[in-house]
Amino acid sequence: MSTMVDALTKLCFMIICMCQASLCYSLSFQWLKSHSNHRCDDDRCQQFQTILQNVDHFGFFNTDTFTQRYILNKDYWQHGQPIFFYTGNEGDIDLFCGNTGFMWDIAPKFHAMVVFAEHRYYGQSLPYGNQSYSNPEYMRYLTSEQALADYAYLLDHIRTSVAGTEQSPVIAFGGSYGGMLAAYFRMKYSHIVVGAHAASAPILQMATPCESFTRIVTEDFLSESSQCVDIIRSSWHAIDRIGLLPGGRERLSKLFKLCHPLKSISDLKNWLFDMYANLAMVDYPYPTSFLADLPAFPIRIFCANVTSTSSKTLSTDEEIVKRVVKGVNVFFNYTGHTQCLDIGSEGTRSLGVLGWSYQSCTEFVMPICSNGITDMFEIQPWNFQAFSEYCFAQWKVKPRLEWSFVEFGGKNITDLRSYSNVIFTNGNLDPWSAGGINSS
Amino acid sequence: MSTMVDALTKLCFMIICMCQASLCYSLSFQWLKSHSNHRCDDDRCQQFQTILQNVDHFGFFNTDTFTQRYILNKDYWQHGQPIFFYTGNEGDIDLFCGNTGFMWDIAPKFHAMVVFAEHRYYGQSLPYGNQSYSNPEYMRYLTSEQALADYAYLLDHIRTSVAGTEQSPVIAFGGSYGGMLAAYFRMKYSHIVVGAHAASAPILQMATPCESFTRIVTEDFLSESSQCVDIIRSSWHAIDRIGLLPGGRERLSKLFKLCHPLKSISDLKNWLFDMYANLAMVDYPYPTSFLADLPAFPIRIFCANVTSTSSKTLSTDEEIVKRVVKGVNVFFNYTGHTQCLDIGSEGTRSLGVLGWSYQSCTEFVMPICSNGITDMFEIQPWNFQAFSEYCFAQWKVKPRLEWSFVEFGGKNITDLRSYSNVIFTNGNLDPWSAGGINSS
Repeated sequence: MSTMVDALTKLCFMIICMCQASLCYSLSFQWLKSHSNHRCDDDRCQQFQTILQNVDHFGFFNTDTFTQRYILNKDYWQHGQPIFFYTGNEGDIDLFCGNTGFMWDIAPKFHAMVVFAEHRYYGQSLPYGNQSYSNPEYMRYLTSEQALADYAYLLDHIRTSVAGTEQSPVIAFGGSYGGMLAAYFRMKYSHIVVGAHAASAPILQMATPCESFTRIVTEDFLSESSQCVDIIRSSWHAIDRIGLLPGGRERLSKLFKLCHPLKSISDLKNWLFDMYANLAMVDYPYPTSFLADLPAFPIRIFCANVTSTSSKTLSTDEEIVKRVVKGVNVFFNYTGHTQCLDIGSEGTRSLGVLGWSYQSCTEFVMPICSNGITDMFEIQPWNFQAFSEYCFAQWKVKPRLEWSFVEFGGKNITDLRSYSNVIFTNGNLDPWSAGGINSS
Repeated sequence: MSTMVDALTKLCFMIICMCQASLCYSLSFQWLKSHSNHRCDDDRCQQFQTILQNVDHFGFFNTDTFTQRYILNKDYWQHGQPIFFYTGNEGDIDLFCGNTGFMWDIAPKFHAMVVFAEHRYYGQSLPYGNQSYSNPEYMRYLTSEQALADYAYLLDHIRTSVAGTEQSPVIAFGGSYGGMLAAYFRMKYSHIVVGAHAASAPILQMATPCESFTRIVTEDFLSESSQCVDIIRSSWHAIDRIGLLPGGRERLSKLFKLCHPLKSISDLKNWLFDMYANLAMVDYPYPTSFLADLPAFPIRIFCANVTSTSSKTLSTDEEIVKRVVKGVNVFFNYTGHTQCLDIGSEGTRSLGVLGWSYQSCTEFVMPICSNGITDMFEIQPWNFQAFSEYCFAQWKVKPRLEWSFVEFGGKNITDLRSYSNVIFTNGNLDPWSAGGINSS
């Protein structure tokens, strides 16, 4: 584990939706569903301001505007000193504000102003209000380039309206997709941003072998227990076999204590996949409540639950599944307060999920696959064509795989040699680190 | 005059349409009208290739594509050696190819591939064919950002399809608006372009005092003859007074030997303004036929004609106008082959004029004014509101003055301190140099 992880775990490890083939693992914002009332109670993150933005920065035909939300905090700021600017990603800005301790930790030392800008189409920064996701014509302005232009306008506004900021250097910060944006902001707007800290930013993910993500997830579990990994690996077929029996889905619903009857086996397996990935992303050495209420080293606890039993053999499918259930409760019910588990495949989807689904169907296709050999999952090859068809069915758009490379570079790390003052940090346990910048 | 001018005059000094208040001095492409059949007869500039481009790079809703034209020349290229890439501006690409000698001059020394990319909406690179300018919905994709993305895609295509270019460094070149694009290309696409030579690129024009342009034009004439400037300055009222007389416009038409009866006095004055500006832009120390067939030092010849007379006094308006006419013939009829002069205010407008009119009504508002004191023109204040209304009437769009500053920087030269490897060159006689980068 990188020595940086401890410092970085205070940074937000936001989660990017993993989409593959015809199914979309809506990793990101699983937590939003269960934490929809979980807002940062830090007063600093409730000091909202707004700015009017053009819906389309890159054209003059559409003159619609919308209200973008941001947080501006001067608690530590001194005249002329830096602006720390968080390039908001796929969610409510107060959540990022409340979970990006690193900026707050260092702001006093630098006498910095702290700004968190909400990403368009997320939180309350909705270009077409609650109709923003209602049709392709309204959604077409959900792109990273438009978001970066929002941020550039916002900084221009701050620097021309807040006395003492005229010459303030701007440092961009962000985690995960927000980290990508922080890096891109420095790359594309060097006249505004002098440097960026891009945490856990998988800017090479689009060009990274698709099995890297699942391999790292598996390695995180392997480092705790190979028996744990064996049980997980064997659980997929066990679930399938139970599901095929008469009353099998009802049995699985009961074993997992699901709130609603299971509609399909794949819903359950996708939900489990998400959970394993989430556990790998938040395998912090201290308790957190970021994605869920979790103990320190949650994978260790998960595997301890899965492997601790008087029985040494796994004689039946049901025995295997029951062990997995014991692990599942670490993630979904560590507090013991949860009566039943909602796998939510048909639940109300938050705007966060919708937004990232669209973005991963357009600019940020992040191939993820599993081969069952270097990972503990079922074989799930990456199929761009099928993914593209899924996107068209879902959003009436098709991804352009090459676009992010052309626009931002990133096919090779050497593409980025022309850029400067961007610090990339990654946690080695984070499965997204495979798509991150891990060398100087 | 800068010592650079001699080298630079081989570079294309393309001309940007100056628009102010309700009138648009269609400086650019006055020459296209008269030179519409004047194509580069250099074979190198006839080696066209095409590439399919997305009409909208910055969104995924519109999936239309169009054919972009470019010229790719390998005469001097060696495997792995640089690509010299001209970021095409507002006109047919073969014209820029044939008038950018600097690239051709140095290509052999660097064993460089030479590429000229045609700007969308100009030449034959029309996103919606001959309907491209027919409505605002079709025109909305005419922006510099879209053009730069075209160039990025084109280079990606070349580097993946032409063996030996994979590692070739790319140097961008351009003149005038093309120079702005070359600089912006390096700024925004540093992962593709390692450096840029931006010739006569008025990237600060949008923030330059509006009277700078006309002041420099006037200084160019003053350096030849203060009497010449006095005559030009007095000519505006002389023209007005003649025009107000019964049969006055007919008289002016006859004096200037116009092909068609003069419809309005302002048409004549705008046409003269354009000519003075053009003369300043192409006041080269050798004969050229770039904007017109001109002698070396055309302003010197112009003023010699205007001031050489046996009469020492200018007793009448008609005498003043006749002197101006003697100058006008230097620009419009130096060869003596022209039977009559077509001021063309109602002539067929080339796509180049249309395109730049749209661009100056959206991203690139370039304020130009005259005060009659530091310049030899009539008082013409800069009125953004009126200009904006003109744009809306013309194109159904309104300019956003701040956009180019936010997107590209350039309110202050120090905005650009974060960028590197961009060489700005200007000729001091060029009135656009006021908006250029004239210090390191």
